[in-house]
Amino acid sequence: MIGIFDSGFGGLTVMKEYLKKYPDFDYVYLGDQANAPYGPHSRERVEALTLKNIDYLVKQGCKLIIVACNTASADALRVVQQKYKGKPVILGVIVPAVEAAFKQSRFGNIGVIGTRGVIKSGAYERELAKYGVLYAPTDKRARKEVKVYSQACPLLVPLIEEGILSHPATRMILRNYLRPLKNANIDTLILGCTHYPLLQKEIARMMGKNCIVISSAKAAVDAIEPYFKAHPDLLKKISKKGGRQYLTTDCPERFAEIGGRFLGEKIEVEKVDI
Amino acid sequence: MIGIFDSGFGGLTVMKEYLKKYPDFDYVYLGDQANAPYGPHSRERVEALTLKNIDYLVKQGCKLIIVACNTASADALRVVQQKYKGKPVILGVIVPAVEAAFKQSRFGNIGVIGTRGVIKSGAYERELAKYGVLYAPTDKRARKEVKVYSQACPLLVPLIEEGILSHPATRMILRNYLRPLKNANIDTLILGCTHYPLLQKEIARMMGKNCIVISSAKAAVDAIEPYFKAHPDLLKKISKKGGRQYLTTDCPERFAEIGGRFLGEKIEVEKVDI
Repeated sequence: MIGIFDSGFGGLTVMKEYLKKYPDFDYVYLGDQANAPYGPHSRERVEALTLKNIDYLVKQGCKLIIVACNTASADALRVVQQKYKGKPVILGVIVPAVEAAFKQSRFGNIGVIGTRGVIKSGAYERELAKYGVLYAPTDKRARKEVKVYSQACPLLVPLIEEGILSHPATRMILRNYLRPLKNANIDTLILGCTHYPLLQKEIARMMGKNCIVISSAKAAVDAIEPYFKAHPDLLKKISKKGGRQYLTTDCPERFAEIGGRFLGEKIEVEKVDI
Repeated sequence: MIGIFDSGFGGLTVMKEYLKKYPDFDYVYLGDQANAPYGPHSRERVEALTLKNIDYLVKQGCKLIIVACNTASADALRVVQQKYKGKPVILGVIVPAVEAAFKQSRFGNIGVIGTRGVIKSGAYERELAKYGVLYAPTDKRARKEVKVYSQACPLLVPLIEEGILSHPATRMILRNYLRPLKNANIDTLILGCTHYPLLQKEIARMMGKNCIVISSAKAAVDAIEPYFKAHPDLLKKISKKGGRQYLTTDCPERFAEIGGRFLGEKIEVEKVDI
């Protein structure tokens, strides 16, 4: 079984990509709605909450756990990985997005948008800085430094959860957030929040043809194929009966309603006490 | 000492009114930022969280506790009042706002705006329904039925916390929320969320001269004077050394920053584990 953990609904965009690519696996999705959103919490609190929820998924027998929440990936992934030491395998969403951005960026001008918590953590900047120098794929000799431009977009999550995606107010707020990134001439933009794929078309339109938009949800799933190839034992261990379970720590009705919109299908949601 | 409890910063608008009217009292403000916002939580969770926080304020020796959060007042006030049976006195913000609206409404067409949680709870409707029939103060013979028009405004809290009060997107979203209330010709509008006084001028402007706007924060403080007159013992018991303490269960820096904006003065904030 694969466990997908998120603070709320956002991780369902990751789940959606997984279901497209690997429909046969058994999945359990856990949204910690009782403590959502994680964005405004302190690092210590995100760590404590993530540990508790991952413990629960481990007890359910998950062989692979995806921390689908960018805030939890930024603040708590290392702690849970150190606790479980690969049993089970626990992966986040930041490194795959950074790798995809690094591969696709032409000039190394990379933008990142996310919640206040993710941007404040500096996690994307730190991962991107590891690459340091980018060799432009069009010209191997043209070395380009990676430059990172970050922008916190705290209003996008509430706007998306309210479902007012094509409202002029949403476009206005989005344009304000993206303006400094456009002015910086970024060639690649990482959507560092699993909610943002719901606005991906609008964001891509605003950023224009010269900017590649990378969803951390899509990147996380794209990265798993080579991972499975390198770890065939893991692939064998994951049960494959096409099962899906949706768990939340609070408000199952609201979760089913908004979650269904994220996933594009009706879902049954069960409340669990963790 | 007076305890003022809120899920986050919002209750500081209540505290501000208290400080204006009763600057000599000792105050402790407690914001449960670790679990904020309460709006999207289930009723059971709001009950459990409110109980825990009120227990803490009781242990600090508060003689009067104001549940300054509309969601907590709607979902959990009765439970905490039943637990403490008047020792200490615990008051909410809904009944005072309803009484103020009832007194000031000319025709009984009363609107309420609040978070999704407050509106869903039906608490304002229930309290207003107790009055049933309103006698118009201008003509004692003209009996008017109280009609209540409710509107959840879930995006106002994030917009206010981001401080983009006079942004065109905020005005656009606000206008959308207020349109059905304007169309219903309400003569009185209750701001059923302690964040909303920060938008009170804009709301009053949009609703026009024929609509009275009532802040639940202001109403809560206005209601306390007659309460003190009726309970002089309580007034004597409250310590009066002008002390102020600001406590939060998470993110003291962010609390100090946004809280200072709500209160209109710089504050020092201490983190507590509850």
